This record gives sequence, C-alpha cells and structure tokens, in this order.
Amino acid sequence: MESATGGAAAVAIARLTQAFGQRIFTGEAVRFQHGHTTSHIVNQPPDAVFAPSTVEEIQKAVVICGDEGFPIIPFGAGTSLEAQLNAPCGGLSLDLGQMNEILQVNADDSDCVVEPGVTRNQLNAHLRSSGLFFPIDPGADASLGGMASTRASGTNAVRYGTMKQNVLAMKVVLPNGELVTVGSRARKSSAGYDLSSLFVGAEGTLGVIAELTLRVYGLPEKIVSGTCNFPTIESAVRTVIETIQLGLPVARIELMDPLALHAVNLHSGLGLAEKPTLFFEFHGSPNAVDEQVAVFDTLQRDNGGGDLITADRLEDRDRLWHARHNLYFAFPHLRRNARGIPTDACVPISRLADCIGETQADIAESRLLAPVVGHVGDGNFHLMVLVDPEDAEEMARATDAVDRLAERAIRMGGTCTGEHGIGQGKRRFMPLEHGAAVDLMAVVKRAVDPGNVMNPGKIFP
Amino acid sequence: MESATGGAAAVAIARLTQAFGQRIFTGEAVRFQHGHTTSHIVNQPPDAVFAPSTVEEIQKAVVICGDEGFPIIPFGAGTSLEAQLNAPCGGLSLDLGQMNEILQVNADDSDCVVEPGVTRNQLNAHLRSSGLFFPIDPGADASLGGMASTRASGTNAVRYGTMKQNVLAMKVVLPNGELVTVGSRARKSSAGYDLSSLFVGAEGTLGVIAELTLRVYGLPEKIVSGTCNFPTIESAVRTVIETIQLGLPVARIELMDPLALHAVNLHSGLGLAEKPTLFFEFHGSPNAVDEQVAVFDTLQRDNGGGDLITADRLEDRDRLWHARHNLYFAFPHLRRNARGIPTDACVPISRLADCIGETQADIAESRLLAPVVGHVGDGNFHLMVLVDPEDAEEMARATDAVDRLAERAIRMGGTCTGEHGIGQGKRRFMPLEHGAAVDLMAVVKRAVDPGNVMNPGKIFP
Repeated sequence: MESATGGAAAVAIARLTQAFGQRIFTGEAVRFQHGHTTSHIVNQPPDAVFAPSTVEEIQKAVVICGDEGFPIIPFGAGTSLEAQLNAPCGGLSLDLGQMNEILQVNADDSDCVVEPGVTRNQLNAHLRSSGLFFPIDPGADASLGGMASTRASGTNAVRYGTMKQNVLAMKVVLPNGELVTVGSRARKSSAGYDLSSLFVGAEGTLGVIAELTLRVYGLPEKIVSGTCNFPTIESAVRTVIETIQLGLPVARIELMDPLALHAVNLHSGLGLAEKPTLFFEFHGSPNAVDEQVAVFDTLQRDNGGGDLITADRLEDRDRLWHARHNLYFAFPHLRRNARGIPTDACVPISRLADCIGETQADIAESRLLAPVVGHVGDGNFHLMVLVDPEDAEEMARATDAVDRLAERAIRMGGTCTGEHGIGQGKRRFMPLEHGAAVDLMAVVKRAVDPGNVMNPGKIFP
Repeated sequence: MESATGGAAAVAIARLTQAFGQRIFTGEAVRFQHGHTTSHIVNQPPDAVFAPSTVEEIQKAVVICGDEGFPIIPFGAGTSLEAQLNAPCGGLSLDLGQMNEILQVNADDSDCVVEPGVTRNQLNAHLRSSGLFFPIDPGADASLGGMASTRASGTNAVRYGTMKQNVLAMKVVLPNGELVTVGSRARKSSAGYDLSSLFVGAEGTLGVIAELTLRVYGLPEKIVSGTCNFPTIESAVRTVIETIQLGLPVARIELMDPLALHAVNLHSGLGLAEKPTLFFEFHGSPNAVDEQVAVFDTLQRDNGGGDLITADRLEDRDRLWHARHNLYFAFPHLRRNARGIPTDACVPISRLADCIGETQADIAESRLLAPVVGHVGDGNFHLMVLVDPEDAEEMARATDAVDRLAERAIRMGGTCTGEHGIGQGKRRFMPLEHGAAVDLMAVVKRAVDPGNVMNPGKIFP
C-alpha cells in the first residue's frame, strides 16, 4: 500500500480496522475511485476508505484519525471539479454515501432534514408528492452534504440563491470528534455567530457535515421555458441586466455562446441558431408567468434579440433544458477524444460581457477550443476547454488560459470561482482574490482544526 | 472620571488624546449618550468616545486600544435593543456616525458601497433617483454598519432576506488594526470561507466594519398594501403558511394582536377592528400584484378572514404602514408613563401560533400588559411589555416573562432572537440555544480577538 504518511498511516488504519473491521477498505480500486477523478488534476488516492452509517461512527472515526494525525477527506457523490477529494497527504476518505435518509419533510415550514449522502435528485423525487422542491441544481446529481461543502449553486440561483441561502442548520462533527448543531429551523436568527455559513463552502476543512436542514419551496403552478438569440454577447447580457433591474423574477437565465450552441445542435438536434443565446425560465401563477414572458420579450427585442421560442408543456421544457444540462455530453461532439477542463468564474454583471469577450479572445489567441455557458443572472460563467490529454503542450496552454480567466475575474472585482470551489485547483488565486483575508481564514482554520486533519491541502495556498 | 479599567484607561485615553487631540471626548453627557439607552438594562457608559473620519483613523485607534487592552465598542446610530453598546469593562466607544458617505451606486450591478455610518433612510433617499431601494427596515433609522453587526431585518425580510443575504462585501478593521476585505462584488462565490457572514451578526466582537457593499433592488412598479382580520391567531398564521407554500411573493406580512390594534386605533385613529390582523404588501407589475392580492384574498377568506382593505396610492399605503411602524409611539397610549421592554423571538412558522398563544397566556398569568406584533412570514414576533419602571416587583415579573419567551422559542426549535441580537440581554440563553456550538463561537472569537478588546461582555455568557 502506497501512503504519503507511511508508518503513521499503518497505525491509524490498524486502529480504524480494530474499530470498524472489514468496513475499512484499502483496495486500490476503491481508493482511486475516492481520489479526484473529474478534473485534469492527477488522482491522489486516500490510504483507506470508510463509509459510516451513523453520526456516532463519524465521530469515532474522526477521533481515531485526530489522535493519529491521519487526514480525513469527507466524500459525498464524488462530483466536485477542483480536486476537493484528493488526498495529497494521504488519509481516510469518509464516504457519506450510505447516510442517505431523508429524515423529515416539514411542509408547513418549507424545510426538510436530510442525511449528508442524500442527493438532490433523490430529495426532489421524495418531495414531489408533497408539492415541494429543492431548487439548487449543480449539473451533477451531487450529494447535499457535498453541495453544502462547496457552496454549490446552478441554474436556479438567480431566483432561489445558493446553498448559502438554503442551509438553515447542520449537525457537524468537529475535528475533535465533538458533535455541534449550527443554525436552527427558525427562518432567521440574530443569536450569535453564523456558524452555518462558516461550514457551508469550507470544503470539509473544518469538520464533517453529518446532517442538514434545508429550505424547500412550493412547486410553481406554471413554468415557461424559452430561448432567444442575439447578435452579440453584450446585447444578451444587457437584456439580463434590464430583466433584473425591472425585478422580473426570472427563475433561470443561462447564456450560451455560438460554439456551445453548435455542440447542442450536434448532440440534441434542436436546430437552434448558432448565435449568443439565452435560455430562460419563469415560475409562478399562469397569468404572472405569461405577463413576465411578455415583458421579457419586449426587453430582448429592444436589445436586438430574435424570435422568442417558448415552451410550457413538461416534455417541451425538458427537451430545452436537457439540451442545456447535457452540455457536458454535447461538448465531445466538438472534438473527438478530447477531454474537457471545466472552470468557472463570477464577476459583477456589468463586467460580464467584457470578461467573456476577453476570455474568448484569449482562447482564440491560445489556439484552444472552449465553449462558454453561464448562469448569467449571477454574473457566473463556465468555460469548458476541450483538449487532447496526451498533448502536454496543449494541456499547458489550456491550464494557462484557465489561470488567466481566474485572474481576469478577480481583476474585474469578481471571484475566481462562483460555484466550483477552490479545492486544489485554484488555491494559488486565494491571495490575489482575498489579500489579507486569507490569513484570517487560516486563523479560523487553525483554531477549529489545530491538528490540520480535516481535508489538508485544500483551499489554502 | 469613573472607569471600570482604572489606571489602564487613563493611559489609553492619554495615548488616544495624543493621537487625536480634542476629538477624544470624556464628558459625562457624551459618554452616557453612547452607553445603551433603548432597553431596561442599566447604562454602562464607555470611558471615552471618538468619532473617526477615515478607515486609517479607525485602524490607528484600534491599534492603540489593542496595545493598552482597552475595549472598543463600535457605535452606529445607537438604536440597538439588547445593550450591545454598553461598556461593562469600560473602553472607547468608536462612533462611526461621521463616516456617512455613499461611495458608489452601481445600478447595472444592483449594488452600492457605503461607509458604515450611512443610515438606511439616507441610503434610500439617495437611491430613489436611480429607481432603486434598499429593503431592510428595522423600525429605527439605524446605521448600515450597525444593521450588519446585529444581522438586522424587519418587515421586508420575508421577500428580500436579512442583512445576511444583502451584504456582499465589507472592509473590516481587525483587532490587530489590520484592514481586510471580506467578500466581493460578485453575486456569489465559492472561493474559501464566507467571512462576510462571520462579521454580519458578530455585534462588533470580531472587528470594526469600515465599509459595506450592499445589494439593492429596483423599485417595484406597483405596490399594494392591505389589512385583513381573523377570529384567531391560528387562522391568521395558517393564511400566511398557505401564502408561502403557494409561492405568492408577499413582500411584507405582519401580524398584530388585538391589543396592538387597540394601540394603533388610539394613536392613528384608523378605526380598525381589534382582532388578530395581518398587514401585508405585494410588489411587482400591476397585473401580477392584482392577481397576487386576489389569490391572497381567497386564502384569507378560506381561513375565516374578513373583508380585505387594500391601498395602492402612496398616501394610503403610508397611512397603513405608518400605523404599523409607529407602534412604539402608539403603545404608550395603552398605559400612561409606562416604559416598554421590547423583545423578539423566532420559531418555525408551524409553531408560531402555539408560541404566541402560550406567550399571551403567560403574559395574562403574569398580570402584564404586552401587545404582540410579528414579521409572521419569518416566524418572528415581538413582544412589548409595558411596565412601570419604578415598580421593581413588576419589572421582575416582566423580565421573567421575557426570559420565558426566549426559552419557549428555543424549546420550539427556534431562536431567542430573530433580529434584535444578543448583546448583554440574552447572553444567558446562548448555551440553551446553541449547546456546544457556543464553545465553537468562543474558539473563533479567541482566535480573531485574542486580547478580547472588541466589545467584551457581549454575546458570550
């Protein structure tokens, strides 16, 4: 068995095995499966994997690991994008996938209580019969504990917020094994420090999320989806700015560049014009939604948009949104055998067209192929650089361009990641983005996790 | 000069005076004015008061106080309700009222940048010409730095959130005098710990807020306000639960009990029925608002409500909302020469009717007079106990009843304060509400402020 921590790892694994028997896995396949696999960053597998069934088992494992200085890497569904799950210092991958029970749905309070391994699709399937839904939708069927850890969001964030706004409370196992409850089921509170917001987005570096209380919402009476296209990115973004200024409660508003549209057409055969395009959706009562679509249509026409295509029947809406959500499957059509390097950035929306424009120019100059899609209502967009993983020189050009996007977003008053997180991939941008605040984050980290056992090698440069 | 810190205070004040000359005030009137005055808790004035004009002056004062172990109490508009501004350990009140410039309004990004002493009314007067507004409205014309510090909210929180959701970024002077920027103008970020949310609600115990970047919103095209009344609190609350479940985007929904209505009638002469009453408001396009009011009318009738009174002209809406906002001036009509002890609590909305019912029974048994008003969409309500401040026995009955409300809210899965904060008044409930998480808050406090100079004696029991 390879291990970054050598003898100490053997002692820790022996103690864990004493406690949990054959449920401590050290086989290579399982270990590699729990290292990071969805980015171009090299897989650094943990020394061992354990899937606890209860909060008490999490606590017991954390205490042993803490005693032995053996790193703990909380693992949800394995869908994070910046190597959050790698084990650069070795350690135990704590796979929370078996803690996947939905514990409460409180319809009157519009909240629910779940174990951390519940996935968002599992939750939504369960909620449907109550007329409720959970809106946060990163592309993958991520676990809710993992989504909290990376402060995930997705297409609905413009209306419903991100995980930051939708986690009401959590149970967290601290690095010393103690269980704390942060937050409460009250919709708001002024009682002391907001510890929920500290664990949301901490990427497992401060503790293990063992239970979550989440906001849920009534399913909208009517949903209308649609698309429209524009001569330029600027005119599409201007339409979105005006939509938000007018207070139109758009539920989703997504931008795709012509290259992304080309991929969609190749994959889904929708036959959409290959121009800068907005995909949008309105939620509400039938009259309200119809009115909102009409107002939106006026705005987009005033900005040079073309004909609005709308869909209100479920199958037609699904066809449109599947095209958007299946982009990761569509992109390979653009280049055979290519690998995608996904990245995201977020800027004040007034800078979004500039940021996308400069990025597209950079991509062209760098002789790369990289479609752009964005959660444009938040100023957040994604770049998927399609590269030949065997071509080291091209890989270097690609990662350089990704780095320049992070720097560009920060220079424009934004952030190097709107929703993917820092993990290993973006640690070097933390000082540029946060300045001295990174030191303050480190002060908090050292105070909560003095032994640095919780997911070491992540977030901090 | 009286001082809790004696000789050390004299040294600190001498150094501050050397740095800032006659701008360091030690006169009794100014000191008492900066101790806490809006609660029944005894005024504990600071040793000195200083009103900095720049971020650099804040830093310089903080460094001197830190060196001398001399407490710093950040002061905004002096409107907090739980003795957040008292100086139980002596120290310097840092009055930010002169740092009241609005630095930027970015209409395209729906954000603005302000100094901490800007008040919410000042900001809204400034924004009006841009067609924008800032929605958070605690009753008083509080400073925005103070509102961030207490995680303030108010009547609009059900739609627009609290300060937690509306602070995008801040400049903060840390206890060591260092200036950090937390957050950014990006609408969302996954880049590291959410330090903004740590300072929002910290009541000045972690640093001094020196600048804020806030979300703003487009002024609604149409606003309709209204009232309706119910046979019971339960039926009023049930109407609110159904409103939220249906996704009706109500902007404000406030509950008043019959005693509060009686005070309103005495003060404003509105002649409203003295029954459990909802005040509500919808914001949006004319058609959408009209439809929402119609749907709401159906819900309230189904729950036994009476005739809906609505108002869409500004003067009529103002008349209604002034009645609600002037409650603190209306209450004295209920009992001559009484003093009000204000308190608030917040519970999951399914428990709200129970919590109010038990509280009203407790108030009656305790032979007290205490109207109830609530931001019922959040499960948050206020109690104003009207007491004779000269009657020590009655004061004791009142504070006991206030304490029991805090315990009751916590027992029902809620919080001992939805928006007033902890200050000195509610410190003893922190362990009951948060359990071991209070120790974690203390770990963070000690790490960020090892000398305990920032507003000592607040939040922690």
